[in-house]
Amino acid sequence: MKRMNFRAIVYLLGCVLMVEGAMMGIPVITALIYRESCIAVFLATAVVCALIGFAMVKVSGKPGSFYAKESLIIVAFSWTLMSLLGAVPFVLCGAIPSYVDALFETISGFTTTGATIIGDVEAMPRAVLIWRSATHWIGGMGILVFMIALLPATNGNNMQLMKMESPGPQVDKLVPKVRETAAMLYKIYIIITVLEFAVLCLEGMGIFDAVNISLATAGTGGYGVLNSSCGDYTVLMQVTIGIFMLLFGVNFNIYYLFYLKKWKSILGSEELKAYLLIVAGSVAVITINIRSLYENIGLALKDSFFQVSSIITTTGFSTADFDAWPSLSKQILVLLMLVGACASSTGGGMKVSRILIGLKIIRSEVLGFIHPRSVSAVRMDGRVVSDKAKQAVGAYFMLYGVIFAVSCFLLSISGKDLVSVFTAVAATINNIGPGLGEVGPASTYAGFDPFSKIVLMLDMLAGRLELFPVLVALSPRAWCR
Amino acid sequence: MKRMNFRAIVYLLGCVLMVEGAMMGIPVITALIYRESCIAVFLATAVVCALIGFAMVKVSGKPGSFYAKESLIIVAFSWTLMSLLGAVPFVLCGAIPSYVDALFETISGFTTTGATIIGDVEAMPRAVLIWRSATHWIGGMGILVFMIALLPATNGNNMQLMKMESPGPQVDKLVPKVRETAAMLYKIYIIITVLEFAVLCLEGMGIFDAVNISLATAGTGGYGVLNSSCGDYTVLMQVTIGIFMLLFGVNFNIYYLFYLKKWKSILGSEELKAYLLIVAGSVAVITINIRSLYENIGLALKDSFFQVSSIITTTGFSTADFDAWPSLSKQILVLLMLVGACASSTGGGMKVSRILIGLKIIRSEVLGFIHPRSVSAVRMDGRVVSDKAKQAVGAYFMLYGVIFAVSCFLLSISGKDLVSVFTAVAATINNIGPGLGEVGPASTYAGFDPFSKIVLMLDMLAGRLELFPVLVALSPRAWCR
Repeated sequence: MKRMNFRAIVYLLGCVLMVEGAMMGIPVITALIYRESCIAVFLATAVVCALIGFAMVKVSGKPGSFYAKESLIIVAFSWTLMSLLGAVPFVLCGAIPSYVDALFETISGFTTTGATIIGDVEAMPRAVLIWRSATHWIGGMGILVFMIALLPATNGNNMQLMKMESPGPQVDKLVPKVRETAAMLYKIYIIITVLEFAVLCLEGMGIFDAVNISLATAGTGGYGVLNSSCGDYTVLMQVTIGIFMLLFGVNFNIYYLFYLKKWKSILGSEELKAYLLIVAGSVAVITINIRSLYENIGLALKDSFFQVSSIITTTGFSTADFDAWPSLSKQILVLLMLVGACASSTGGGMKVSRILIGLKIIRSEVLGFIHPRSVSAVRMDGRVVSDKAKQAVGAYFMLYGVIFAVSCFLLSISGKDLVSVFTAVAATINNIGPGLGEVGPASTYAGFDPFSKIVLMLDMLAGRLELFPVLVALSPRAWCR
Repeated sequence: MKRMNFRAIVYLLGCVLMVEGAMMGIPVITALIYRESCIAVFLATAVVCALIGFAMVKVSGKPGSFYAKESLIIVAFSWTLMSLLGAVPFVLCGAIPSYVDALFETISGFTTTGATIIGDVEAMPRAVLIWRSATHWIGGMGILVFMIALLPATNGNNMQLMKMESPGPQVDKLVPKVRETAAMLYKIYIIITVLEFAVLCLEGMGIFDAVNISLATAGTGGYGVLNSSCGDYTVLMQVTIGIFMLLFGVNFNIYYLFYLKKWKSILGSEELKAYLLIVAGSVAVITINIRSLYENIGLALKDSFFQVSSIITTTGFSTADFDAWPSLSKQILVLLMLVGACASSTGGGMKVSRILIGLKIIRSEVLGFIHPRSVSAVRMDGRVVSDKAKQAVGAYFMLYGVIFAVSCFLLSISGKDLVSVFTAVAATINNIGPGLGEVGPASTYAGFDPFSKIVLMLDMLAGRLELFPVLVALSPRAWCR
């Protein structure tokens, strides 16, 4: 039993803050271009961020080796610390007067949730809007590295799931080259983001909107720059955004396989097949269900595709007020909120592969009753899932249920109706953004009291970090001895 | 791999039908006493039931040995077959004209759910009402035998949970004496039922009401004989019913330990402690939350206690329209619906012990991150829970989630609002009865279309039989070869 390696924690959190300081250059440049007065605020915060980060790195010195515990705590603290500092400019430039609200907005950004408390985004300075979108992009990149590079390296037991999910690079070989993997992921991530930006510009979208939408799509975040979210863009642009949302919800290992030209492995991916089937089925049913609300079936299909893509990838953009859709369509969207995107993507939710493994475990239990003596192994993409991994999947779903139930209980104290409470929790723990009822696509989270907002912030963090790191960071056992 | 033992299935289902025929003597006697015209219908159905049962037993002959698969199929078919025949008198005597509705009412009865489609129960013949209550009592007795005597004997892998849950009789020794265990359970069950009947009579309740309420409480069913459910009884009677509901929600092994005077084991039962703590905590919070709706805190406490007891034991009686209570109270009731009563009781839901084991599994996973090398065993009442049992608990929760999600989807096709759909599924899969919204305590399930009713019937069966038997019975793999 090793002592906690505080040095490593301070060192790596310092690095993260320096990165945040650098990324704040984006709103600084934006403010410069549009001659906005908030330039001073962003510049000052950027410098403070970088200086604190630099000091932390200098004070701690080289970190030495560390273990799963430290990795998870670093991850949980990275998101928290980045949000604590990232919220400051929102308050100082007057965009969001309350710090709790600003923190909510920033955590929602970095966790790529996209739940907002700002009603009139069009009244905001452009630097503020681009910083919101940038938090999505940074958060999305962070989560990719966390899930593909860092998680398998921690060797913690829950991580078996991730190992197994990586059909691409062999994890055992991958561990020593975390840097290489991370660099490769950044490349793929940047290439697709730039591609979306280029296509949107070609279709006639303004550069500022195209940058924001691309950053927010890449992180599957969902902060928009128009009060209508994506409702005022052309049909072509909406379809483009819908397609790119779907792309960012795909397991990034698929893109690595694509790069390696391993077509057979791509076609053999059970998760990818299930993901595309769920999308196609949902789009078909919702299109038929909302058909009568639209002039023609084409428009119904477009809105249905956009919304399904937005919700399953947990982005949260909208082109229509789906809270006004019939029950069946709303129910499908609620279920898609829970399903979420593929593992090792920037999307949130339970993840398609986890649900697939869950279904296979159920099937093997049923077969166990029928043929008590034959043991049926659970396989994923042809490989046997270990007992430890199966247990981790079970524990994940149970913890998900517990966090969900406790959050619903805590939010009900505010007296809000059960649909708003339920979908607010679903929309934050799955990192989607909008829910139904009071938190529907046409409204914001501003109506919750500060206590409820804090609960929802913790839900966003827990959901984004695959639940367990947050519990580990909060556990006294991790800190004692 | 043995062939399916059809002989055993037919033989045992025949026995079940003979029992049903005999139990229909209760409404026959009631109709005789109150000189109701439906006596002919009940007498005829009873005779037909008994004759079909007798024929089945004679045709099949002695069953020979059989296995888990057959046991589970027998259980699933028992409930279905008893309901198919038990619904007939409701239609023939004109109480419920539609057979689908009558079947819904009967399945709801035998699964001890108590979800009704009858709006005006006071207009019903007394024989009909007592048959409704009797189905609860028979179902409750059946489930005790199924859970304590039959399930451990099947030796199926999911059953490990039950084994472990039995702090009382050793299961290994118990298997050869299934009959003895069953007889002991009947005795305890009958004694507590008679006790409740006696107390209610002493408190001044009419004999007919006391019989019905006692039968429905014992099965934790919830069919009442007044349109107000239990709202028109005196405070003393309501408190009595509340206490007896709680008693029937306790693990029956506790009563066996009580009989053996093993006080230490009773006090050491983690499930019992958790169950009582959850009840006490919920009652306290709800009392404070609904205080302002009542004249004095005593009445608020009484309604709070009654409703918590009714919902956690999944009985479903009501003394107040809790759908009109504040969000927090409603949210607590929804969560209690999911929790359910203790294992090996007549109550439904997920079961307190399963949730305890789930929480312990989560805790052990978190500790696994913190101390990757030390293995922390999950213990229940001091005994280590096996890996197989842990996996079964995980699979149970996942299957629960899947059935819940699929049912919500199927019910949404009817276009009903999401709260009604969600709580209708929760109220049936957990065998409670009333939900919120359109299926609140002041209304019925009559408003659902036949397709939705069939989905809800399957939910009641799945919930009552611990999910897996229904899946096994429906699985083609169980029937082929």
